[in-house]
Amino acid sequence: MPAFITFLTDFGLQDDFVGTCHGVIKRIAPETQIIDITHGIRPGRILQGALALANTVPYTPVGVHLAVVDPGVGGGRRPLALRDAEGRCYVGPDNGLLLPATDRNGGVVEAHELANPAYALPTVSRTFHGRDLFSPAAAHLSLGVPLAELGPPIDPEALVRLDVPEPELGQSRIRATVLGVDRFGNISLNLTREQLERASIVPGTRVELAARGERYYAVAARTFGDAGAGDLILYEDSYRNVAVAVSRGSAAELLGLEEGSELLVQVDGP
Amino acid sequence: MPAFITFLTDFGLQDDFVGTCHGVIKRIAPETQIIDITHGIRPGRILQGALALANTVPYTPVGVHLAVVDPGVGGGRRPLALRDAEGRCYVGPDNGLLLPATDRNGGVVEAHELANPAYALPTVSRTFHGRDLFSPAAAHLSLGVPLAELGPPIDPEALVRLDVPEPELGQSRIRATVLGVDRFGNISLNLTREQLERASIVPGTRVELAARGERYYAVAARTFGDAGAGDLILYEDSYRNVAVAVSRGSAAELLGLEEGSELLVQVDGP
Amino acid sequence: MPAFITFLTDFGLQDDFVGTCHGVIKRIAPETQIIDITHGIRPGRILQGALALANTVPYTPVGVHLAVVDPGVGGGRRPLALRDAEGRCYVGPDNGLLLPATDRNGGVVEAHELANPAYALPTVSRTFHGRDLFSPAAAHLSLGVPLAELGPPIDPEALVRLDVPEPELGQSRIRATVLGVDRFGNISLNLTREQLERASIVPGTRVELAARGERYYAVAARTFGDAGAGDLILYEDSYRNVAVAVSRGSAAELLGLEEGSELLVQVDGP
Repeated sequence: MPAFITFLTDFGLQDDFVGTCHGVIKRIAPETQIIDITHGIRPGRILQGALALANTVPYTPVGVHLAVVDPGVGGGRRPLALRDAEGRCYVGPDNGLLLPATDRNGGVVEAHELANPAYALPTVSRTFHGRDLFSPAAAHLSLGVPLAELGPPIDPEALVRLDVPEPELGQSRIRATVLGVDRFGNISLNLTREQLERASIVPGTRVELAARGERYYAVAARTFGDAGAGDLILYEDSYRNVAVAVSRGSAAELLGLEEGSELLVQVDGP
Repeated sequence: MPAFITFLTDFGLQDDFVGTCHGVIKRIAPETQIIDITHGIRPGRILQGALALANTVPYTPVGVHLAVVDPGVGGGRRPLALRDAEGRCYVGPDNGLLLPATDRNGGVVEAHELANPAYALPTVSRTFHGRDLFSPAAAHLSLGVPLAELGPPIDPEALVRLDVPEPELGQSRIRATVLGVDRFGNISLNLTREQLERASIVPGTRVELAARGERYYAVAARTFGDAGAGDLILYEDSYRNVAVAVSRGSAAELLGLEEGSELLVQVDGP
Repeated sequence: MPAFITFLTDFGLQDDFVGTCHGVIKRIAPETQIIDITHGIRPGRILQGALALANTVPYTPVGVHLAVVDPGVGGGRRPLALRDAEGRCYVGPDNGLLLPATDRNGGVVEAHELANPAYALPTVSRTFHGRDLFSPAAAHLSLGVPLAELGPPIDPEALVRLDVPEPELGQSRIRATVLGVDRFGNISLNLTREQLERASIVPGTRVELAARGERYYAVAARTFGDAGAGDLILYEDSYRNVAVAVSRGSAAELLGLEEGSELLVQVDGP
């Protein structure tokens, strides 16, 4: 079984950041395979990165999960290596990025600060820890270096945690927050199907959506095929979030929503 | 010889769709190599995806060709595994996406519907068959699972076929359709060099192009170097389609054309 | 130790150019690993590609460095294979793209023109040498084919060289050129920290920037963390160029600068 590193960042693919990190990893661990999860996290959006990491880790081989969305690079935030109860390792900044993923796998059982220069590049720049610190650490971990070699232990309770927005669940009205918008313009909400059902919204229910002062009509559905072209639907997406889509169009454009926007959902009618 | 899966979609690289599929494949077939052909097919454009697949398959190792441009996901369209006369396998939706590629390799000799849950993820979502159905099937095929294991056979004649637009070839006038526009703004047409020659257009011939009510002058050429900066040229592109380019510029911007647009080509002069 | 090819182009990832080249390489050298440095070089910008290649090669395994930014494809420019004093090989067009990288590794010790059809595809198109000529050559080199097999030797002194813009260094005023802008909007200049220091600009110094007729105030800093949100900073970036950034924003947007733009830097105050 080969060793795997999955890799998620906000670096984009226009520049050479991602490729350079691949080079650094391969110089240390030539046989380790790298799986690029995405490098399209919006610059500095830690929550978006954390949710993407948490959503995707279960679909990837057990290995090292390298994630860098790090607006505080060069400041005081600690560089981390973690291990979860499933044996997966994580490398990245201590800004909350890694914890939603570890939470889904039994939580952090071991945490260390990256402090041992033997597992970093000889020169560590102040602005590109992805290359100089995190990639070498991930590469060495993939070769079997024990976590404890990388630096002093940290109390898992002391790690920085993100506030994940929670929906407000009324009797028949839900105030949700947009977690993200994908390439197809589908809008992912901080809402589960179970929460919808508690507001009596099930497939077939007609609902009213309110966003930015405008009202829209939608129908709860199982899949895109249940709606006509141009119709708004509310459905459970492939990561089990409730999402809004418009058949053959962009719901995000139609509703003018983006990550962090608010959306009200309620049953339509008296 | 390692096993190969080539991978082509309209998923883009902003989101984690492609990376998640890589993870799914690698959990099943860790030694299989994945070649990403492109994930930049415009959302839902089946014809664009089908042509890109057909153009590129001959340049890739014999293996499994996974392709997902699937606006009908979750509806009634069948999920497929095919084999062509050259021994290449194909996995994707039954919407016409795969057939232009198989046509260039002797046609489909075996077709099966993906129906065996043993070769899908334990839970198949309604909106992300790329991850839950197609990637696992491709991974298992790359390990040598016989096509017939994946589900019941389908008559190859019953597979959905796309209409590929045909040019109208007049005596000295050709009505062509834009198949696609690349990053450099080069416009690929549904036209071959042989068809141009039958209208007496050969390298050096001056031609008139008409698009969106405007007229432009161009010259038939062998390569970009045969034209001055800003000159329009008509040439045979690297996939043997006739294409329009402008030296050091974007022909698509200059002419205001996109996929599906119409272009008239005729010899310039009396 | 596996063989490596690094790959840098201006092909973008929207089209199938990059994936097709991967296919071509893997048909010839299935076990060779490919590291994509970037394919986001702006179309035809040879200098941008050359600098990205020079910056990143030291971070990648010794192997073959394939680079294609080739606006003169199909014209008279020669296709090349080079070897530097460190034993790294380079494949690409003779337009200056490769030399800044070789310069950092002791210079070119061997240069050959790609002329042997045994190491190209059977048909070489006029517009896609990346696929038909450069990728096969790189693949064969990665398998151990000697450079001299690929074609006749060239005098390294006769290779095309780029003009890399030099800064004008006054007593207290520097006229610099923008080398590039990254995804985060950080502006990289043709300037080193040592050159800044000769103008008495050290961390903490307040400086005035002038661009496009506007003036801005900035502070020389060690890292992003040394500035408040919205403040402009001048710092040494991770490739040891002086760069301009704005904390939590895009300096390039703020200053309206792009590759090739001019920027004046001087100490602020009497």
